[in-house]
Amino acid sequence: MIMKLQKIALELAAINFNRDPLNLNQLMEQYPIADIAQVFAEQLANQTLSEEDVFELVQLMPIARQAALLGYFSEPIREKVVERMPLEALAKVLQVMPHDERADLYAHLDETRQPPLLALLDQQERQDVQQLAAYPQGSVGSIMTTDYATLNADDDVPQAIARLREMANERETIYQAYVIDKQNRLLGTLSLKDLVLAQPTSLVSDIMTKETVFVRADEDQECAAQAISKYDLLAVPVFDEQFRLVGIVTYDDAMDVAEQQADMDFHKVAAVGFTGNLKEASVWLMYKKRVFWLVLLVFGNLFSGAGIAYFEETIQTYVALVFFLPLLIDSGGNAGSQSATLMVRALATGEVVMKDWLSMLVRELGIAALLGATMAIAVSLLGFWRGGSDIAFVVAVTMQIVVIIGCIVGMLLPFILNKFKLDPASASAPLITTIADSIGVIIYFSVATMVLDFPPVT
Amino acid sequence: MIMKLQKIALELAAINFNRDPLNLNQLMEQYPIADIAQVFAEQLANQTLSEEDVFELVQLMPIARQAALLGYFSEPIREKVVERMPLEALAKVLQVMPHDERADLYAHLDETRQPPLLALLDQQERQDVQQLAAYPQGSVGSIMTTDYATLNADDDVPQAIARLREMANERETIYQAYVIDKQNRLLGTLSLKDLVLAQPTSLVSDIMTKETVFVRADEDQECAAQAISKYDLLAVPVFDEQFRLVGIVTYDDAMDVAEQQADMDFHKVAAVGFTGNLKEASVWLMYKKRVFWLVLLVFGNLFSGAGIAYFEETIQTYVALVFFLPLLIDSGGNAGSQSATLMVRALATGEVVMKDWLSMLVRELGIAALLGATMAIAVSLLGFWRGGSDIAFVVAVTMQIVVIIGCIVGMLLPFILNKFKLDPASASAPLITTIADSIGVIIYFSVATMVLDFPPVT
Repeated sequence: MIMKLQKIALELAAINFNRDPLNLNQLMEQYPIADIAQVFAEQLANQTLSEEDVFELVQLMPIARQAALLGYFSEPIREKVVERMPLEALAKVLQVMPHDERADLYAHLDETRQPPLLALLDQQERQDVQQLAAYPQGSVGSIMTTDYATLNADDDVPQAIARLREMANERETIYQAYVIDKQNRLLGTLSLKDLVLAQPTSLVSDIMTKETVFVRADEDQECAAQAISKYDLLAVPVFDEQFRLVGIVTYDDAMDVAEQQADMDFHKVAAVGFTGNLKEASVWLMYKKRVFWLVLLVFGNLFSGAGIAYFEETIQTYVALVFFLPLLIDSGGNAGSQSATLMVRALATGEVVMKDWLSMLVRELGIAALLGATMAIAVSLLGFWRGGSDIAFVVAVTMQIVVIIGCIVGMLLPFILNKFKLDPASASAPLITTIADSIGVIIYFSVATMVLDFPPVT
Repeated sequence: MIMKLQKIALELAAINFNRDPLNLNQLMEQYPIADIAQVFAEQLANQTLSEEDVFELVQLMPIARQAALLGYFSEPIREKVVERMPLEALAKVLQVMPHDERADLYAHLDETRQPPLLALLDQQERQDVQQLAAYPQGSVGSIMTTDYATLNADDDVPQAIARLREMANERETIYQAYVIDKQNRLLGTLSLKDLVLAQPTSLVSDIMTKETVFVRADEDQECAAQAISKYDLLAVPVFDEQFRLVGIVTYDDAMDVAEQQADMDFHKVAAVGFTGNLKEASVWLMYKKRVFWLVLLVFGNLFSGAGIAYFEETIQTYVALVFFLPLLIDSGGNAGSQSATLMVRALATGEVVMKDWLSMLVRELGIAALLGATMAIAVSLLGFWRGGSDIAFVVAVTMQIVVIIGCIVGMLLPFILNKFKLDPASASAPLITTIADSIGVIIYFSVATMVLDFPPVT
């Protein structure tokens, strides 16, 4: 694999040096476009190729190859190539691109270039591009394509196969065909497999599947990905509000959505709203993405500080207590973060739903009691070694309470945030640390004041 | 969508009451098997159906439907149905299952039932099941299937189409066919689309694609998922060590792997090695999964404690310092966790590779300096309000240093863990909190001792 990429890189360097379209064409025939796109991206990153080089190499390719390569480029690279292309050349490439990709390319164009580009397309293409590009980012419509294969209900099998053969080159897939009426309402779907297996005398209406899974164009793009994954589909049909077929989402786009979603979930947990390429992001961008939560947490910690200020006298008398402060408040936060992460994920995947909150709470109490007891035993050994039996008692009791409260807060917080339509993934972890810290400080010094002050008083 | 599931649930309850195979069959024809499997699972969970009910309903179905439904059940439900099935009935179901699913079912069977079940299969099936079940969990081999479609290089187009039509019902897919020689070496691949588009007089060898992407059976299953996603494949061929074709992995299985992987990554960050269903897991299981890291972190906090003990005198003199302790050590940990999470993800997706460590470090220094400066300004306001300009100075300096060190540790730790072949995802977050705490304590009180003690001495 690595070998293959190195070979492509070497050949590409030679081709770039000579600006040699013949060898470039051969290279693109010989290797998968995905690999060639990857080598381009790597050579751009380590500055073996300049943006100008990439643009000029792309210009040497036949139109169909240009279209395919642009489809595999990441958004920033594609943009850099496209902004150098004359509009006439770009219009030619758009004509052979899959409809979803060309709408995406158009939507990312500089606004001043959009109208003149549209003017270069024929009416049908222009409408298609505008319609697809109008769907908001993140909707099913924004990832669907309109180049699906359609069949007539009253065609027989040989007619249907002939129709698919005709359309094959301009359609995203011919393995799933859609049978529609004059109003573009979906009557059924038919797979090429069922078509190939059917009696030649059968009609499409006899062999098509009438029950169909579908999604709506204005739903979240994840709906399309989930439908494809759940029902093992090659593509899912997309309807508008009038239940007319307006497009399809194919499995490969669904996989991209799922990957993107996993990335977003992951970064939300880190309280960093960043999903781009880490290597390409500037220092300033990363600073902006990260600073908000960090500064907010500084002020959140005021509550722990207030707790400490209130118990200053106890602390002055028993400085040994400070020894266990980081340990106890961290433990509550750690246990709570575990609960929260598990719950956020379970809510996101639908494993757990809102009405489960009480049964989950009861279970969490059991788990937290066990965890707290174990950690209390561990910390009481340290307490005994540092400060004798009184301190051991204080830290053990505190630990048990802090862990139980941390777990309950961690478990309930995602439910509460969800209830108020806030995203639990991005807010849970830092909020829990802050809450657990404040509660931990108060419990710790309250217990200490009670236990340690009592003996002298009596 | 919800409506549909409720309808299925109502009908299923009636069917269960009457144990009525006719209506059951109709139900299964009318709705997607995935939905019916989901309703079964939900009714089991809320105890509307017992395990015995599910088993008996499954027994009422025709063999092909039983096989399809078992394929959609989650592992625990499938196991409960299968353990009640007589071996003869199970053998019949196995004969019509996709090869990957049947090997998976066999591998999860009670060991005492495996040999008698094998004895009921004919020789070819027996070998196939044993071979597939022998691949270790998590390998490409464990998710591949052997029921792929093959073609001869010297068939012409009509012969090839006829061959595919014959095989269609027993193969996982006929949209990709594999052209092999007598030693089972892959000569090329051919899509049904290209076959349908080809001139009838062409030979398979003329129109097949010779360059092929493949994976090895002993590689990590994620390799197959990545190849399918990167090259937009319907299926990827799998080779053994002698480069013979031994199976294929299809896109739907690749999607499952990708989802599973995203789940695992997510839970590793929470330092909980748990990937099952949260609702079904017992209190004791969750306790065991969670307790290890929590207790380890208790002892990890010894280092912060030691730091505090060393500076006990400073603390006794300036109790106000304790006010800022949780805040300062949390900030270092928070900033470091952000860096680590971003880096773990970037390393996992290959966005960043090992040799990038130095350039990433330089960038991280810049980001950390900006973050630290912002947070230092925020905290110095608090410091001034609580304890005057000296305290403000101490906490601001400490904050700047603690954030920079936290970020650097957070950024480098994933590289270091990776270098020593440890999994950075599961270890990074808790380790960083612990390290940031200890370093934070030492820096805080060192700075405080220097700044606050100097004036009286001079």
